Amino acid sequence: MGEGMRVGVVGATGQVGTVMRRLLLEREFPIAEIRFFATARSAGQTISFGDRDVVVEDVETADPAGLDIALFSAGATGSRAHAPRFAAAGATVIDNSSAWRMDPDVPLVVSEVNPHAVDEARKGIIANPNCTTMAAMPVLKVLHAEAGLERLIVSTYQAVSGSGLKGAEELASQVRAATEQNVLGLVHDGAAVTLPQPVTYVRPIAFDVIPLAGSIVDDGERETDEEKKLRNESRKILELPELLVAGTCVRVPVFTGHSLSINAEFAEPISPERAEQLLAAAPGVELADVPTPLQAAGSDPSFVGRIRTDQSVPGGRGLALFISNDNLRKGAALNAVQIAELIAAKQPAA
Amino acid sequence: MGEGMRVGVVGATGQVGTVMRRLLLEREFPIAEIRFFATARSAGQTISFGDRDVVVEDVETADPAGLDIALFSAGATGSRAHAPRFAAAGATVIDNSSAWRMDPDVPLVVSEVNPHAVDEARKGIIANPNCTTMAAMPVLKVLHAEAGLERLIVSTYQAVSGSGLKGAEELASQVRAATEQNVLGLVHDGAAVTLPQPVTYVRPIAFDVIPLAGSIVDDGERETDEEKKLRNESRKILELPELLVAGTCVRVPVFTGHSLSINAEFAEPISPERAEQLLAAAPGVELADVPTPLQAAGSDPSFVGRIRTDQSVPGGRGLALFISNDNLRKGAALNAVQIAELIAAKQPAA
Repeated sequence: MGEGMRVGVVGATGQVGTVMRRLLLEREFPIAEIRFFATARSAGQTISFGDRDVVVEDVETADPAGLDIALFSAGATGSRAHAPRFAAAGATVIDNSSAWRMDPDVPLVVSEVNPHAVDEARKGIIANPNCTTMAAMPVLKVLHAEAGLERLIVSTYQAVSGSGLKGAEELASQVRAATEQNVLGLVHDGAAVTLPQPVTYVRPIAFDVIPLAGSIVDDGERETDEEKKLRNESRKILELPELLVAGTCVRVPVFTGHSLSINAEFAEPISPERAEQLLAAAPGVELADVPTPLQAAGSDPSFVGRIRTDQSVPGGRGLALFISNDNLRKGAALNAVQIAELIAAKQPAA
Repeated sequence: MGEGMRVGVVGATGQVGTVMRRLLLEREFPIAEIRFFATARSAGQTISFGDRDVVVEDVETADPAGLDIALFSAGATGSRAHAPRFAAAGATVIDNSSAWRMDPDVPLVVSEVNPHAVDEARKGIIANPNCTTMAAMPVLKVLHAEAGLERLIVSTYQAVSGSGLKGAEELASQVRAATEQNVLGLVHDGAAVTLPQPVTYVRPIAFDVIPLAGSIVDDGERETDEEKKLRNESRKILELPELLVAGTCVRVPVFTGHSLSINAEFAEPISPERAEQLLAAAPGVELADVPTPLQAAGSDPSFVGRIRTDQSVPGGRGLALFISNDNLRKGAALNAVQIAELIAAKQPAA
């Protein structure tokens, strides 16, 4: 490590932080100095990074001075507490939480969709979108440019790793319990299964789906925060403040990979063939006959397929399609690192 | 068994046939005589039914004379081959396959929704709807009566038992393989999992979702037969030949219980509160905060919840809601037995 940026990863020991560290190495991000931060519980441990050993610092007490970029995956509370301090010390904060996304002085950036917005970081903070919204943006951007997006109806199939390690552990423990009872293949009746009491989710997640991802927002609209993020973040990223969006966010027993079933309505007609032609050339997008989260897990692109004319929209102005994307990579860590790359590319050569 | 109907179950040893036999007993259907039929492979075995032992007859060679009702769950091919012969011998055939559903001389009946249609069985055959469509009908019927249904956008979450025992076995075998590799809870990357080669489905189903339930129909519209059934059968059952329907049919790693995320548009405004009031009183429907397939499995009603105003429809004319229902009970065997009950109720007392 010599020339390059001085980079911090905040929340370095968590699920997304771990992927951030891996991606910085994989993508050969130009690093002059690397620092890892976490809460007091994880501070003090040593993590190897390439050929270096890095001692994790306590984010509460560490001095952020000297950092160029701070990649935050510390939750909304951690981000509200610490991101302004890191920004004030001179770092550009790239934040993975929901804390700053709707702040008009904080750009919300998908690297392939609105990279120009990184220049509008008036608080020194750039926000990374919600993982579900993220998956759809590279696809919808090119379709919007062609035909003028007017309305989105979305049902999601969200992986448990979107709830952090505890989500994956809850699914795994319930599956193990079912396996030990030898009820697999006999489970034709809910009564036959005795699963551990759910903790992370309001219902069992093994061999089940839960149509409540996130928490109901107390504004009388009965939507979850996930469903509101899908609307508000799509509008901000696509720069379509009036876009009509209805989402139903559902958790499914998948470890990694968020999927969306989308019915999109446009101002102009657009055929499935034309959509495929555009998407074949779109950055961050890969066409698939039958996109699945297991295919997407461990990969970068948003896989998109099952593209059809929505037969319920007059005049060929509707498309139905299905998207799967790795919620920990593009949905979180990868896009954050890509934003860091946009910033690094703007620096004068050392 | 004395007074009552002379009943045959065709496909008696299959997954749905097994549930049919159980429901006939549970619901104390009035049975004077019971006969079981299956293919040659299963013929000859003895199945107990209440206090009787019944030898399974070969459907190819058996004489159907003397039956009042024949419950068919023998697949579309079996039904095309044998249902007309059973009907000609005097039985009313209640058929669970897709073979006759769109025949204008065959009523397509959901017992709570259009019971009057049983009188229109001009071929002696009554069709039982597709399990996915079925789940939604008792819910949509009452909302339509109130506000005038105009458009449905549906994404499904369909259980593997909808593909028969082989679907459940494929899910179970893949889960077992993952468990034996001890990768549960570590599965953050598709590459980490070596699952058995899929046979029933085009992709792995364990810890995955497959946005292709059914087979693509070769008419250029790129929809699956499941997606077309959802449109065509909804139109026929609700007697709305112009209803706009767009479905995306997705298989999920759930053993039993089909779910639908529905965005419904109406001619008139309808509030979530009014919808709940109507649904609380609707036959075959049960309100649930968070309906799940595991809750529905083993139960009769369509569980419906997450009822919200669809914010993307102007004037409060849209609702979003989520439905889960046992695809083997109401979705197949139960509705067939309920149709038999409608017929039995019309018979003069013996």
